[in-house]
Amino acid sequence: MDESFIALQFKDEQLILLDQRLLPAQEVYLSLSTCKEVEDAIRDMVVRGAPAIGAAAAYAVYLAACQFPDTVDFSAACDQLGRARPTAVNLNWAIQRMLAVFFRYEKEGRTTYLAALLAEAHAIREEDIQTNKTIGRIGNSVIGRNATILTHCNTGALATAGWGTALGVIKTAFYDKKNIFVYADETRPRFQGARLTAWELMEAGIPSKLIADSAAATLIRDGKIDLVILGGDRVAANGDVANKLGTFALSVICKAYGVPFYSVVPVSTIDFSIPDGSAIPIEEREAREITHVQDVQVAPTGMQVYNPAFDVTPHQNLTGIITERGIIYPPFKENIERIRRGEIV
Amino acid sequence: MDESFIALQFKDEQLILLDQRLLPAQEVYLSLSTCKEVEDAIRDMVVRGAPAIGAAAAYAVYLAACQFPDTVDFSAACDQLGRARPTAVNLNWAIQRMLAVFFRYEKEGRTTYLAALLAEAHAIREEDIQTNKTIGRIGNSVIGRNATILTHCNTGALATAGWGTALGVIKTAFYDKKNIFVYADETRPRFQGARLTAWELMEAGIPSKLIADSAAATLIRDGKIDLVILGGDRVAANGDVANKLGTFALSVICKAYGVPFYSVVPVSTIDFSIPDGSAIPIEEREAREITHVQDVQVAPTGMQVYNPAFDVTPHQNLTGIITERGIIYPPFKENIERIRRGEIV
Repeated sequence: MDESFIALQFKDEQLILLDQRLLPAQEVYLSLSTCKEVEDAIRDMVVRGAPAIGAAAAYAVYLAACQFPDTVDFSAACDQLGRARPTAVNLNWAIQRMLAVFFRYEKEGRTTYLAALLAEAHAIREEDIQTNKTIGRIGNSVIGRNATILTHCNTGALATAGWGTALGVIKTAFYDKKNIFVYADETRPRFQGARLTAWELMEAGIPSKLIADSAAATLIRDGKIDLVILGGDRVAANGDVANKLGTFALSVICKAYGVPFYSVVPVSTIDFSIPDGSAIPIEEREAREITHVQDVQVAPTGMQVYNPAFDVTPHQNLTGIITERGIIYPPFKENIERIRRGEIV
Repeated sequence: MDESFIALQFKDEQLILLDQRLLPAQEVYLSLSTCKEVEDAIRDMVVRGAPAIGAAAAYAVYLAACQFPDTVDFSAACDQLGRARPTAVNLNWAIQRMLAVFFRYEKEGRTTYLAALLAEAHAIREEDIQTNKTIGRIGNSVIGRNATILTHCNTGALATAGWGTALGVIKTAFYDKKNIFVYADETRPRFQGARLTAWELMEAGIPSKLIADSAAATLIRDGKIDLVILGGDRVAANGDVANKLGTFALSVICKAYGVPFYSVVPVSTIDFSIPDGSAIPIEEREAREITHVQDVQVAPTGMQVYNPAFDVTPHQNLTGIITERGIIYPPFKENIERIRRGEIV
């Protein structure tokens, strides 16, 4: 029941990342030994997916501490790291958690705080895997036998420290012999569904088909999708979810045709400080993601582009938010407040 | 106010087509001298767009008549041509119109019927251009000053014998100095928006941006789109419209957020024999359109694919259908029946 690959691990003072830009054509691992290298890898999407960004950032903070004995330099490196991508909250969640450890152990000397930081980064990674396994078990409860599931973007082992969030739920249901079938949206512009989710589905042997993002709507209308399960990059305190571009459109179609629609996230993806989705910063990425596919030019030179990487789904369009502490149902604001207070929902 | 290119013309007994598969990187013209070559060009999407397919097919019937003096062989070639693509009704509409001319003049000898067929093919092409100019003038009435318009796929000079349907309306409004702005969906999987519409927008100098198909929903919700105008490949007698994959999803989003949504078609695209959209055959195309972009592989080898080329938008989601005989508004069934009887709506 485990992956045939490890996309993110720390060994010999290096963060080793499977380069997700090259999948599925090539499996290349990069070894990164500085915070700046990890920051660039996050920005360039060598590693992506909110929980995976968090785990990578944790190791980056450790690498920054190794490189910069001076607190000012160290803080500057962490600040810079925190600006690598704006939407996923896990990036700064992980940095803040690491900085808290740094300030707790700073007085006890360099050897001590470096050891504490490395232990904390390992803990963040390991907790994420365990969290995902728990999420998988909890989410499995919403999947019926013989269900046909639609998913969007990549939320598997590649998007996390391991196992996955939404795709972790799907894998759990598959290994529970529920005889599921999966439609995977290709997820333009960066094809995370085609390149990564399809790859993970095939690695696991899950019966599935790949579709253009626009093909989902008719499948939903025609009753061919039992439920939609996908991830989340930042959840606001009222349950609005920022997630990969295309999520919002799917949520409107599902609402119009009465199909259950779940976002699957670890609690670390909930940003309790943000009242609603309108306050979530939406990253705009470079035009080339739209005008080219690798070296193939698909739009005329000079064409202007608008390329947001995420969109916001209002909580009214969600059936539930699946977390390691239970499934959050409406009223979302009240139930997310219970999560904030440490309760199980 | 005319195009800088002619994508479809007949010269020296050859149909000369701008190869739309290679745009915008290369402008290559193919010279086709047999019906079979045109049939392959339609299937392979050298030429696409319902009205352009109709005009190309008309010349193909003439070329078949030149090649096959025997009526059995000629009929077989026309039958085969009619199966090149299933969804756009204009293909068989043009073939039937040409065959009617053949049977009218067959008795008068080969020279006469060949001349009549060529004249009819020219008429179909010329009428389509004039129809599109009329559609442009009529459609311009729904576009306000400073409007921001969203369009999908390609419906311009490349999709027709000239000028265009939905993009013809947009061009008419632009040349009418309405200060419009256009968002063009890239239109996966074949990128007709990115490759063809963006190219036509730039040729005409219309201010515009290209977006991923999934980016449209948030623009619509946030009030940044005043109206959506797109084409149609077959309109049923009740007003249901089969059009390029992605149209249906847009229609649901527009309905949810109260944004006007128009299909623009010549009357030749209305199939009065089909009661509703459920009877329109939807073409499924090869997996490679999803797994590859030219030679770039974007999905793992062996991944299964579902690749419908079109979807059906129920008439309930349409604001109106813009034709050369007026704008058809609800009740669509009654008003389409008036069009069938030859009235102006």
